[in-house]
Amino acid sequence: MLHRLFPVFEWGRGYDREAFTNDLVAAIVVTIMLIPQGMAYAMLAGLPPEAGLYGAMVPLLIYALLGTSRPLAVGPVAVVALMTAAAAGDVAGPGSQGYHLAALVLAFLSGAMLLALGVLRLGFLANFLSHPVISGFITAAGILIAGSQLRHLTGIEVSGKTLPELLHTLMQDIDGLHWPTLLLSALVLAFLFWSRKGLAPLLMRAGLSHKAAGLISKGALLVAVAGSTLAVALLDLAAAGVPIVGEIPRGMPALSLPLSDWPMMQALMVPALMIAIVGYVESMSIAQTLAARRRQRVDANRELVALGAANLGAATTSAMPVTGGLSRSIVNFDAGARTPAAGAMTAFGVGLSLLLFTPLLHFLPNATLAAIIIVAVAGLLDFGTLPRTWRYSRADGTAMAATIAVTLLMGVEPGLMAGVGLSLMLHLYRTSRPHVAIVGQVPGTEHFRNIERHAVVTAPDTVSIRIDESLYFPNARFLEDCVMGQVAGKPELRNVVLMFPAVNDVDASALESLEGINRMLAEAGVTLHLSEVKGPVMDRLRRSHFLQELTGDVFLTQHDAMRALAPDLTADTSRAQRRETLRAEPAAAQTTASSR
Amino acid sequence: MLHRLFPVFEWGRGYDREAFTNDLVAAIVVTIMLIPQGMAYAMLAGLPPEAGLYGAMVPLLIYALLGTSRPLAVGPVAVVALMTAAAAGDVAGPGSQGYHLAALVLAFLSGAMLLALGVLRLGFLANFLSHPVISGFITAAGILIAGSQLRHLTGIEVSGKTLPELLHTLMQDIDGLHWPTLLLSALVLAFLFWSRKGLAPLLMRAGLSHKAAGLISKGALLVAVAGSTLAVALLDLAAAGVPIVGEIPRGMPALSLPLSDWPMMQALMVPALMIAIVGYVESMSIAQTLAARRRQRVDANRELVALGAANLGAATTSAMPVTGGLSRSIVNFDAGARTPAAGAMTAFGVGLSLLLFTPLLHFLPNATLAAIIIVAVAGLLDFGTLPRTWRYSRADGTAMAATIAVTLLMGVEPGLMAGVGLSLMLHLYRTSRPHVAIVGQVPGTEHFRNIERHAVVTAPDTVSIRIDESLYFPNARFLEDCVMGQVAGKPELRNVVLMFPAVNDVDASALESLEGINRMLAEAGVTLHLSEVKGPVMDRLRRSHFLQELTGDVFLTQHDAMRALAPDLTADTSRAQRRETLRAEPAAAQTTASSR
Repeated sequence: MLHRLFPVFEWGRGYDREAFTNDLVAAIVVTIMLIPQGMAYAMLAGLPPEAGLYGAMVPLLIYALLGTSRPLAVGPVAVVALMTAAAAGDVAGPGSQGYHLAALVLAFLSGAMLLALGVLRLGFLANFLSHPVISGFITAAGILIAGSQLRHLTGIEVSGKTLPELLHTLMQDIDGLHWPTLLLSALVLAFLFWSRKGLAPLLMRAGLSHKAAGLISKGALLVAVAGSTLAVALLDLAAAGVPIVGEIPRGMPALSLPLSDWPMMQALMVPALMIAIVGYVESMSIAQTLAARRRQRVDANRELVALGAANLGAATTSAMPVTGGLSRSIVNFDAGARTPAAGAMTAFGVGLSLLLFTPLLHFLPNATLAAIIIVAVAGLLDFGTLPRTWRYSRADGTAMAATIAVTLLMGVEPGLMAGVGLSLMLHLYRTSRPHVAIVGQVPGTEHFRNIERHAVVTAPDTVSIRIDESLYFPNARFLEDCVMGQVAGKPELRNVVLMFPAVNDVDASALESLEGINRMLAEAGVTLHLSEVKGPVMDRLRRSHFLQELTGDVFLTQHDAMRALAPDLTADTSRAQRRETLRAEPAAAQTTASSR
Repeated sequence: MLHRLFPVFEWGRGYDREAFTNDLVAAIVVTIMLIPQGMAYAMLAGLPPEAGLYGAMVPLLIYALLGTSRPLAVGPVAVVALMTAAAAGDVAGPGSQGYHLAALVLAFLSGAMLLALGVLRLGFLANFLSHPVISGFITAAGILIAGSQLRHLTGIEVSGKTLPELLHTLMQDIDGLHWPTLLLSALVLAFLFWSRKGLAPLLMRAGLSHKAAGLISKGALLVAVAGSTLAVALLDLAAAGVPIVGEIPRGMPALSLPLSDWPMMQALMVPALMIAIVGYVESMSIAQTLAARRRQRVDANRELVALGAANLGAATTSAMPVTGGLSRSIVNFDAGARTPAAGAMTAFGVGLSLLLFTPLLHFLPNATLAAIIIVAVAGLLDFGTLPRTWRYSRADGTAMAATIAVTLLMGVEPGLMAGVGLSLMLHLYRTSRPHVAIVGQVPGTEHFRNIERHAVVTAPDTVSIRIDESLYFPNARFLEDCVMGQVAGKPELRNVVLMFPAVNDVDASALESLEGINRMLAEAGVTLHLSEVKGPVMDRLRRSHFLQELTGDVFLTQHDAMRALAPDLTADTSRAQRRETLRAEPAAAQTTASSR
């Protein structure tokens, strides 16, 4: 029982010194990344830096207890931070007390929603988000994030939730450019981008192993933080107008329960749902990718519970919404994290820093945090996917382009809604018109094929329709339309045979359509038959009155059906074979068959 | 060109005296029904009676020009009238000037939406409404309609939008019972219910033909109207407190363009969409049923345009939202209406009555109109469908029960939303987990079957997975999960074969999943193969880089795949055949295969 609730009882049993060492190394590397990233994402969300650090403590401990992904590194992430800023900015002024409360309400609501979805086993709802939509959304969000950081990088008062707003404010305050800030940003950015590619090879040439070099190069963040902090402190750049982080409260977060403001909770319902779903989808895709490498599995519903509980933990410790982060998870994995204990150790490391090191971060310039964000989101931007998706599928490409455009022009929430709405519409459109073929007999065989593609013979008073999809409400009306369309204007028709070899399910809507078709055909003097109905579908149909009402028969095979309905056609296979020359004239084939 | 826009040019050409006679008879019968019904549904919508009569004029003329269904009788209908009352009551007080404006705004907006959907060919969006949901909604709406008419039938001040409200107000004012009104209602109701069954046989015994008796029995409405009006006038029941229709403005409606109140238009957007979709779905199902009887066809997108234009016509002539009505359409059809000209003649008949006969309706009691509504909605109530649907499919039964419950307890709009939301969720749930089978070879054959159902052999280092559905975003994640789940904890695995015989489409999300699976398997040292990929799917995959990246091969048949990947297994069919006794122990079959 406890095993099922807390995976810690599974991996905890075999925990040994080797696993501990691996986890510790990973935890140290991730902590070094997480402290500046946490502060940076808090800044991105418009929150004080400590909110990001708090988000790197209790949520990690909770995820370590409940999560099913071993290497997933939970904490503040860029896209969710941007969504938090967009939603909180709608209900409270930036920097106000209500603003941080709004962030906590978002964490609380999205946590509660994730938890509820997990307990009710509704994880499949995340399928509303198609890959192209989420990918387009992330790219567009990345652009908005980068744009929002221009303020910290340059001193120009750039602000807004959409690309036009960002550009407009940039133009308006172009004179606000602060050269010392820009210079500092440029140096930090150049160093960070170089370190991503250039540092590890340098360290390897210095004699370090490939793995060690890779891990130590992650310390570049620490170097950037320490270097720029020292520079600001020694050169007194704060006095020259370079904005700095300033005082971070020392010690543990205050406990909070953000349930006081009911109107605010109502207003944040929809944004919280979006944060929950985007966070979950992102986190799951990271977790699945990493789990696969070690042939492990991630349980979707338990992940929902774990992420939900982690966010409730964030909401009650003055933090911000959290989820699994891509870059830190990969580092955690590469550093050899074997178990979620690495996450717990990371939380411990962050807590220790909060107790001891926050005074050292006083002179840390905001520009460095902005540079860290820029480097992180540079990895999110993916401009190649759009043309590739468009080439592959017009529908998916359209959904993706619309998501990007609406997100950039109207903001993250309308963008996500437009994307989800469009993909649902496209899905409905696709499933509403399944592939259907009018079939005829391949002469001399028991095979029936599409009359449009093969040289086949058909009987003039019988039409056979093969449906290549399960029948359910999105295509129930299409089915009626399709069958009745075959009958319209054909007074000679006496039999309709529906072939069901690909029908895995017939839901109540489709059953009603079948009953309607049967009734309508009867009124028009046409008999309805079925053929090749699968066992489970037959079982289900027996639970209704349809089979009693059916005017015709249910045939085991289409060949049986045609033998009963058009014996002339199927009996004389030798003569039929001679008709193979008719490939070019299917209409002629029909006439020939009818003349007999 | 004109033919495509105006079906009138199609049927108008062959129009002759016989068609005219048929249409005229039908028009007279429908007019006799439509005048009292129009006034009754206007009362149901909370509007003055003339709004219903106006709704029976211009909209009918417009539909006659544009509609593709010949017998469809457009005009005010009960369910749409109830939805109009619910929506208008939210933005204006009943009886106020804003209230009628709201009804016109609803007609305008739903008309514009239908028109837009038709022009953009988005009729498939109506598929969002599954049969069980619409059927449950209509039944629940029927109950609410009947409840709302208690006021006119009894004099008790019953009001409200939900069943609890109706019952509560009924209990509160139970002493308001007005005996003369109740007595009148009971007589009219008894007569109308009797006339539905008993009148036609009586007329036939009097020597009339079956058809004539059926048509003339529709005159029962007229008899009820005339009889009760006379009774009220002669017995001076109005003075005794029996509410009457009173003065109806004589002559043609005033033109209106309900675009002045922008906030009201915004508030009515969602209700208008619901009215549009419910009206369209109801109308289409009637039109399709009747068209099928004469082997005619209805064009969904042109119907959208015609109904949309009819509603715009209603909005601009002080009427109310309209759609195709079931009972009048059937009467129209049975009376022999051959062309939409019957509808135009009906409009003319209603117009004539407005010019000449409205003074005669002064003493018409509201109770008679309420009785007409009750008789009409009695045909809508369908309590047998719920248990039947539940027996057939738990999912559909749940959606239907939820729609009924929410509609009764919370009103029409929440009910419809709950139903649509639930059916979408259920659909997504269903399509998110397609049927998937792990297959093995039937010994001695080239057939591959589900290992759980058949005695088959498999190779220990190869797993073959057959997917029985197209791959698109709702099941893309499931696919990953399913494949990676087969790999998890099987260190001996070297090959995964995905069998695609039932895959008709692979969308961009599913492609990304396949790429992800390929990558993840490669990292785990497993090769991915495909088999039995259909031509169109293969064409599409060629437009991506997937086939280049694929670590394994694409085999034409599963047999080819197994011959290449597990030659031991397929070569020795004689030995394999001997294993047929292993049916009871599929695990043993696997072991045997692996031991060779």
